[in-house]
Amino acid sequence: MTINQALDTNIATLGPCKVDTPLPYYHYISDAEKISLFLSPDLLDAPNDGQTIAEFEEAGPREKIYFDPPKTKCAIVTCGGLCPGINDVIRAIVMSAHHNYHVSGTLGIRYGLQGFIPKYQHDVVELTPHNVRDIHEFGGTILSSSRGPQPPEEIVDALERMNISILFMIGGDGTMKAASAVTEEVLRRGLKIAVIGIPKTIDNDINFVPRSFGFDTAVEKATEAIRCAHVEALGAPAGIGMVKLMGRESGFIAAQASLALKEVNFVLVPEAKFKLHGQDGFLEKLKERLQNRGHAVVVVAEGAGQDLCQVDGQQDLSGNPILGDICEVLRAEIKEHFSAHDFSYTLKYIDPSYIIRSIPANSNDRIYCGFLGQHAVHAAMAGKTGMVVSKLQERYMYLPLRIVTAKRRKLNIKSNYWRSVMESTGQPQEIFSTDEI
Amino acid sequence: MTINQALDTNIATLGPCKVDTPLPYYHYISDAEKISLFLSPDLLDAPNDGQTIAEFEEAGPREKIYFDPPKTKCAIVTCGGLCPGINDVIRAIVMSAHHNYHVSGTLGIRYGLQGFIPKYQHDVVELTPHNVRDIHEFGGTILSSSRGPQPPEEIVDALERMNISILFMIGGDGTMKAASAVTEEVLRRGLKIAVIGIPKTIDNDINFVPRSFGFDTAVEKATEAIRCAHVEALGAPAGIGMVKLMGRESGFIAAQASLALKEVNFVLVPEAKFKLHGQDGFLEKLKERLQNRGHAVVVVAEGAGQDLCQVDGQQDLSGNPILGDICEVLRAEIKEHFSAHDFSYTLKYIDPSYIIRSIPANSNDRIYCGFLGQHAVHAAMAGKTGMVVSKLQERYMYLPLRIVTAKRRKLNIKSNYWRSVMESTGQPQEIFSTDEI
Amino acid sequence: MTINQALDTNIATLGPCKVDTPLPYYHYISDAEKISLFLSPDLLDAPNDGQTIAEFEEAGPREKIYFDPPKTKCAIVTCGGLCPGINDVIRAIVMSAHHNYHVSGTLGIRYGLQGFIPKYQHDVVELTPHNVRDIHEFGGTILSSSRGPQPPEEIVDALERMNISILFMIGGDGTMKAASAVTEEVLRRGLKIAVIGIPKTIDNDINFVPRSFGFDTAVEKATEAIRCAHVEALGAPAGIGMVKLMGRESGFIAAQASLALKEVNFVLVPEAKFKLHGQDGFLEKLKERLQNRGHAVVVVAEGAGQDLCQVDGQQDLSGNPILGDICEVLRAEIKEHFSAHDFSYTLKYIDPSYIIRSIPANSNDRIYCGFLGQHAVHAAMAGKTGMVVSKLQERYMYLPLRIVTAKRRKLNIKSNYWRSVMESTGQPQEIFSTDEI
Amino acid sequence: MTINQALDTNIATLGPCKVDTPLPYYHYISDAEKISLFLSPDLLDAPNDGQTIAEFEEAGPREKIYFDPPKTKCAIVTCGGLCPGINDVIRAIVMSAHHNYHVSGTLGIRYGLQGFIPKYQHDVVELTPHNVRDIHEFGGTILSSSRGPQPPEEIVDALERMNISILFMIGGDGTMKAASAVTEEVLRRGLKIAVIGIPKTIDNDINFVPRSFGFDTAVEKATEAIRCAHVEALGAPAGIGMVKLMGRESGFIAAQASLALKEVNFVLVPEAKFKLHGQDGFLEKLKERLQNRGHAVVVVAEGAGQDLCQVDGQQDLSGNPILGDICEVLRAEIKEHFSAHDFSYTLKYIDPSYIIRSIPANSNDRIYCGFLGQHAVHAAMAGKTGMVVSKLQERYMYLPLRIVTAKRRKLNIKSNYWRSVMESTGQPQEIFSTDEI
Repeated sequence: MTINQALDTNIATLGPCKVDTPLPYYHYISDAEKISLFLSPDLLDAPNDGQTIAEFEEAGPREKIYFDPPKTKCAIVTCGGLCPGINDVIRAIVMSAHHNYHVSGTLGIRYGLQGFIPKYQHDVVELTPHNVRDIHEFGGTILSSSRGPQPPEEIVDALERMNISILFMIGGDGTMKAASAVTEEVLRRGLKIAVIGIPKTIDNDINFVPRSFGFDTAVEKATEAIRCAHVEALGAPAGIGMVKLMGRESGFIAAQASLALKEVNFVLVPEAKFKLHGQDGFLEKLKERLQNRGHAVVVVAEGAGQDLCQVDGQQDLSGNPILGDICEVLRAEIKEHFSAHDFSYTLKYIDPSYIIRSIPANSNDRIYCGFLGQHAVHAAMAGKTGMVVSKLQERYMYLPLRIVTAKRRKLNIKSNYWRSVMESTGQPQEIFSTDEI
Repeated sequence: MTINQALDTNIATLGPCKVDTPLPYYHYISDAEKISLFLSPDLLDAPNDGQTIAEFEEAGPREKIYFDPPKTKCAIVTCGGLCPGINDVIRAIVMSAHHNYHVSGTLGIRYGLQGFIPKYQHDVVELTPHNVRDIHEFGGTILSSSRGPQPPEEIVDALERMNISILFMIGGDGTMKAASAVTEEVLRRGLKIAVIGIPKTIDNDINFVPRSFGFDTAVEKATEAIRCAHVEALGAPAGIGMVKLMGRESGFIAAQASLALKEVNFVLVPEAKFKLHGQDGFLEKLKERLQNRGHAVVVVAEGAGQDLCQVDGQQDLSGNPILGDICEVLRAEIKEHFSAHDFSYTLKYIDPSYIIRSIPANSNDRIYCGFLGQHAVHAAMAGKTGMVVSKLQERYMYLPLRIVTAKRRKLNIKSNYWRSVMESTGQPQEIFSTDEI
Repeated sequence: MTINQALDTNIATLGPCKVDTPLPYYHYISDAEKISLFLSPDLLDAPNDGQTIAEFEEAGPREKIYFDPPKTKCAIVTCGGLCPGINDVIRAIVMSAHHNYHVSGTLGIRYGLQGFIPKYQHDVVELTPHNVRDIHEFGGTILSSSRGPQPPEEIVDALERMNISILFMIGGDGTMKAASAVTEEVLRRGLKIAVIGIPKTIDNDINFVPRSFGFDTAVEKATEAIRCAHVEALGAPAGIGMVKLMGRESGFIAAQASLALKEVNFVLVPEAKFKLHGQDGFLEKLKERLQNRGHAVVVVAEGAGQDLCQVDGQQDLSGNPILGDICEVLRAEIKEHFSAHDFSYTLKYIDPSYIIRSIPANSNDRIYCGFLGQHAVHAAMAGKTGMVVSKLQERYMYLPLRIVTAKRRKLNIKSNYWRSVMESTGQPQEIFSTDEI
Repeated sequence: MTINQALDTNIATLGPCKVDTPLPYYHYISDAEKISLFLSPDLLDAPNDGQTIAEFEEAGPREKIYFDPPKTKCAIVTCGGLCPGINDVIRAIVMSAHHNYHVSGTLGIRYGLQGFIPKYQHDVVELTPHNVRDIHEFGGTILSSSRGPQPPEEIVDALERMNISILFMIGGDGTMKAASAVTEEVLRRGLKIAVIGIPKTIDNDINFVPRSFGFDTAVEKATEAIRCAHVEALGAPAGIGMVKLMGRESGFIAAQASLALKEVNFVLVPEAKFKLHGQDGFLEKLKERLQNRGHAVVVVAEGAGQDLCQVDGQQDLSGNPILGDICEVLRAEIKEHFSAHDFSYTLKYIDPSYIIRSIPANSNDRIYCGFLGQHAVHAAMAGKTGMVVSKLQERYMYLPLRIVTAKRRKLNIKSNYWRSVMESTGQPQEIFSTDEI
């Protein structure tokens, strides 16, 4: 399905809304209130005309809802890798479902999709406003997580057994696809279970989600590693500070962190192929920088330069290819090239790895997670299903799952944004393949 | 001038652009490339239709520019109160003007508009990429600031004397009005001086600037005070933690910080009048909360409840009315009311004051300030004048000064946003005057 | 009782130790292992000879203990104002009592000494390794606190009723005196209840406790306010940044924070009387500083300059005199003096108040709190009573309560330490009364 | 030379002190004022009697000094790896030498000992109170550093050429040995140059320096990585969080950080050999922990378990042996052992590496660095040479260089301190070789 087709689909509902909401609001959002947007070219990957208009349902509480709260039981599951803010989303869902709607209960499914499958023997936990009260002060997920798919049939079996009316699935691309499969299985069985996805990705690579929750926190933390790399680079003769950052297929963290701490001289991302060798290659340009300025900071997204790595085609549990270690390649090549030119240098390598993702969310992400959770509950109570909450152009709206699973978001290296990264680093464009930029 | 009229004006230019830009970009922004937006109701203060379309010039480098860089001297001035990120904006302007455009020099005007006026005898400083290199690690402004207006004629005299081609004015509402006056005086004299405003306000109350730079940092810092107030409230029998936050005429910091740290039980802002006394009044509701839950956190924007304060009509140097001390009033009223009911309590009052505004910007604000500075330089080099850079619906654009000076931005207490604040705090709506919400 | 007499007293014990410890250690501390110390003059307030030797019991586990763990119930109470690290101490006590000694239970007494008195109707809470697991991540005390004394008889009644064998009292000077009174009442009744004091004071003013827990964290946090005051002072013409810090009778936080962030130009503490007026007075010296350097940072301990304030002799609930507001006096005097000299200035006043004490402990304090808690348990299990744990000259030891209650610790303004504060600020000694230094 | 012999040596001086100090102090320290200390067993590595008394010169300003300040030129050099607080020491030296003593100038030698050797062509920089003003806000060293020795003769040649009277050498064990060699060469030539060492080591392994500057900051930062490892461990089924921390020959950071954040279940340090295999081995005990508790946090000092690694005997530039990668060994062994037992697990490995050492110092370290710098200047001005400043049992004193170079400090695994680490982690003692504990 193309994006344009996906954009034309409406959000599915379980049925007409006949129950009065318990929310004492002065105004509600009606399903008819669509938000019109001029889609920016980045969303569409189309030429830069910016004249495509799309319409989405506005997020928020409806005056009539589908589920009768005292008979409604919710479940929350968190899947895939950690990310700042998961606990904030959990907390917001529980607070909204209980304090605003007074649902009968919320179950926490432990260890991701495994938690639905009997053979793993994971317990469920009862989530209440009291026991989620302070969880936003901790990184990670109080529910724990796991990787990899589980059969949608068994998941729906579990939902039926536990009498769940609403399932909130917090996870990445794979989890959003699982959410689609669960939604379909629910519909196939004619059940009345709403499935709401809350996309989570540290790489910020989910389509139509310009900023995934936790991303801002991760960038902030990543700048600490960059600052250290800069200090180390300055601290030694011909000092190189090299930082590896997350970003398997898209270099958003690397790019954003380089804009945030403008000491970076080279940013390498998966979206922009670069040359190592030759007069215009990275190695020679790095040497020039060291000769002219005495130090250099290099930021590398983990998925950059995969064409330069030897990879064996293996996959991890989530089905993602295991990446080659580009930083190891770069360090070896720098050693060889600089030795060959009899050029002494000092390289300090920093891999903050999980440090940038296991921390609690900052204020900006907390607010965002709060809205995501609240709007997810509003949507679910109104019987919407197979959808996600997103914030586009400063407003919250509801999108069909298929829009976000249609493709992965990537850095547009022809955009103003990437140009600013280039301006800010001052890195020579020659190192990138000319057909890319 | 109404907003709608202001929206129809174009950005003034000093003349046709005939110089080739030195920027080696693969693509440039043309003045013809307008960005179309559906204006959200908050921007217009109009009924909630969201169907008004506006067009603005897209921010970014132009292929032809107006000023010849080697003959172009810039000046930067910072006015009014401090705010996180001022140094980042200064740094971005200097870096872009020097590294990208190679202008002949940039002068820093010291101590705000005073720095233009001979009688104050403030020196100017030469700003170079080298000496602004590390300034983003410090709060405040390396140029210092001052409050209050100065005659536009004397400012333009000074610009002429110093041979300035481009003036960047970083400041609040008053400074943006001064920028308009300077622009007009420049045009009256037929000079070729571009004037670019960069709106700065810790209160986030500038029109058509949905998020002012430094706001996110200030909110993050404000949550620390709220967390402490919560800890203090929990630490004593019937403990009240009261926090005063900046916000003279608009309660954005108070509202946003309460969303960010959801321990807040009452948020009082200038936009929502509240009752102190009576069964539905704040005092009684606070007592109820303490009786039921044992503690309470109250966040107060400094401009809240001015109808309850005695004020004498005096003004500060910037011409702002001196506010009554609402927290003093509240503390006295709580004491009286609770004593009258023989209700023991402990109140801990925290006023973080300048702590939230004198700190360095966080990553999110740093990136934002970087773009504001770069785009200000791109605009100025292209001979645009009497304008500001703003980010609306995720994109940077150029707006005429008159749009931002037309009125002050305020919290819309009929918005989804404020509703979320109410949801999050759980504060009783009855305390607010019924005609407001 | 003089210090020297107090130094000669031994620690009381409830009886001979006959129970084998469950701790599987390779070596134990014997009561006979005394630590010899040359007492530094600061501890004794004596002339600078440093030749007085004292002997104290070394802290640590004993091979034979007094209480039989499975029959031993502990209680913890936290009293007075908050301080970073209280939760760490609670956690360490519970972890050590349960994991190392396997006591039958630990009760948390809520809201300070009030929690023992039936009329207040506060519940107790059961403390277990599970429910104290994460409390070190939060400031304050999970047990809450209250101020003021309660009758020792009623406290001991409560201990008897609840079958408590060991009481840990965390609190300030007043609480240590209460601990003495409770110890005496226990002995008078011939009960076998150990009472261990853990001195807590944000002002660091407890005798023979050179560094109270939480002090290091509070100083670290206080420097943030000073940094902001410096930024504000730099940001305006003749800018003064004034910071008020805790320190009722001793200026340790003010002095230490000024050493930690050397931007401070004047430090005013209770121990050093200063002159306001005259050629050598503070006002004139402040003006000189502003004239020469353009800005000034002034740090004021809340108890400084009380001779300059009007105080009415009232006391707070803990029996401490209510202090005059020295910063208000200084601001008024500065205004008058500078106006009289027609000298324009800008003063920014920052009172971080509870922000410096309600935060979680930093690593240094955490480690310290961990040792205090562990050693308190080791002492109590060995039947020691009427004592505190202290760290002197890098080693942990047990001291009789009377040593720490003999007098308040104060800054020695004739010490090398205070000289370094003067060196670091460069403040003129003339402002201080000559008979003091 | 044994420690006991070293303890008997006096500090060398360049000659009698005849110049009046410019310091306007009310009291001075006389050389005759010795500080007596009972040496704790840890300092001596002797049996636990604690009855050995040593005497050291007290640090501080002397009333008569050796050098005539207006004719005195200082130099500062920083060597070896980075460490928090180096800039604070530099700043304190410059401030004290210039503001207190008014020396004629201070030169900064760039890039460590290389900076003395002409062939490297590194410039020197003039250090003034103005240009070191803000350097404490940055990590690293503004002078840069390098590794490895240089000929003492050439260093003294350079000192003569530059007319240096006082050389401050900030560096590790190797640098302290170089300082001894330079001192001897100076004396051999009959020059009047004072050489003062300021020991720097992130590993905290310098003899008679119980806490090296920057150590506290590094520990604080290391706990962040441990917290993340804990979050990651909790976030997955049978989750292991493994953290590698600095500590080549001594595990102080690992041990201290584990005390600071008590989520650690295993700490492996160089001083305590451990078994991998067998019923009592690390692998089996780790599996037990995972089976019982579902997660585990393992902290590993980089120099731990070298007997389990393959090392090839190579050395780095500073002459330190290149260590085997124990964490790689552990990860491989865990994989093999757990696969063999068909036990699924998730391991997240975090190596914060330079992140813990390139940051600015915290307040505690800043104060410490300030005293180290000030006292170094006081010593040098009085003509003392071949010595270091140390803080022992809470007081600053002067020690001959030979005491600190006599041996490396190591964790005493028979101490109360290490016992507390064991108590806090609860790690089974069986995994350690029995002859060690």
